[in-house]
Amino acid sequence: MPERSKTKTKILATALGLFNNEGESQVSAVDVASVMGISPGNLYYHYKGKDEIISALFEDFEEEIRMVLSSPISEPLSLRDNWVYLYIVFEEIYDFRFFYRNMSELLTRIPELRARFSRILALKETTVFSMLSTLEEGGFLSFEEGEKGALAGRIAQHFTFWLQYHDLRHGTAPPKSLIDQGVFTSLIQITPYWHEGDGYANLLREFLEGQD
Amino acid sequence: MPERSKTKTKILATALGLFNNEGESQVSAVDVASVMGISPGNLYYHYKGKDEIISALFEDFEEEIRMVLSSPISEPLSLRDNWVYLYIVFEEIYDFRFFYRNMSELLTRIPELRARFSRILALKETTVFSMLSTLEEGGFLSFEEGEKGALAGRIAQHFTFWLQYHDLRHGTAPPKSLIDQGVFTSLIQITPYWHEGDGYANLLREFLEGQD
Repeated sequence: MPERSKTKTKILATALGLFNNEGESQVSAVDVASVMGISPGNLYYHYKGKDEIISALFEDFEEEIRMVLSSPISEPLSLRDNWVYLYIVFEEIYDFRFFYRNMSELLTRIPELRARFSRILALKETTVFSMLSTLEEGGFLSFEEGEKGALAGRIAQHFTFWLQYHDLRHGTAPPKSLIDQGVFTSLIQITPYWHEGDGYANLLREFLEGQD
Repeated sequence: MPERSKTKTKILATALGLFNNEGESQVSAVDVASVMGISPGNLYYHYKGKDEIISALFEDFEEEIRMVLSSPISEPLSLRDNWVYLYIVFEEIYDFRFFYRNMSELLTRIPELRARFSRILALKETTVFSMLSTLEEGGFLSFEEGEKGALAGRIAQHFTFWLQYHDLRHGTAPPKSLIDQGVFTSLIQITPYWHEGDGYANLLREFLEGQD
């Protein structure tokens, strides 16, 4: 993370909490200042308005998610670590949910984030492809031609839209338990490609049964 | 469709073309009037601004998509009709793409559409579930517990976000060929559940091979 003054760090943490819980469109920079008990002028001295705050929050998210997404590419996951790993990815996204719930509007308003977000999506696909390849090489999964790439693409798409779909479908703020549901829906996409009777199948079954 | 004057019909067709091709945020009601060669005042006499035009376009879309989505629920599809049917669904959505590419912003701006869109999403899930059930009853597909509902949900989610994911990932307007890719990505999600060697498998294979 970039080095920041204590006040800047506090502004970002406060804004993130408010954006996530109240909805970004409902919160102004003045609200952030007022929750912190500082004057709007003081806040403005640190960040020139809401979009600068969002850019700084995006920078932090970008750094974290890139680190998380790169790890199974540089070092293959052990079998048992796969679903914990997926949980971590969904949790990172959940912690930045105000952005994911409203990304098309925010990317129109702050265009400099567009290319950066697009690179994160590409990295998501590479990461999932790499996880699936490790499982395939270990003899746990098998694919017909084209299936692996298509599966990686749609799990990456699922990471990206699972919160927004919940919003649109149910019209309510996503509860934290939606992370489990995100992991579940990813795993159940992988299960058809597993080899019956091996350890991975059992691990997945354990997780899936725990969900009922 | 509601009965409308010739001018109203022309306004809606012009606006839909402009929104789809230029992006809704780039087009004002004055642009629509100017492309039609009528005065802004004349347009305003028929529709009080852009959001009223969008509401009327949504009404038409809603009527069409409900009709399309209801058909395999009331009358099961024959085997060979499944992929043509999916093509029709994706085409309907593609024809209303300005909305799908920017839905979270539009639903915030025109809140009366939110519950109506949410009901369309629910209907999408019911429709896919019903298609999968017909194929299962015909002995073409088989599912473990929970898989069918999860598959229906994620194909409905795919209908909803496939255009937006293309935008975010590639930053370009979606070409018409993206409809094929949407159908392909839906079918390849169904293939793992088919029974090897039967007619459905061969139909799907034909389609998938035609895509390479």
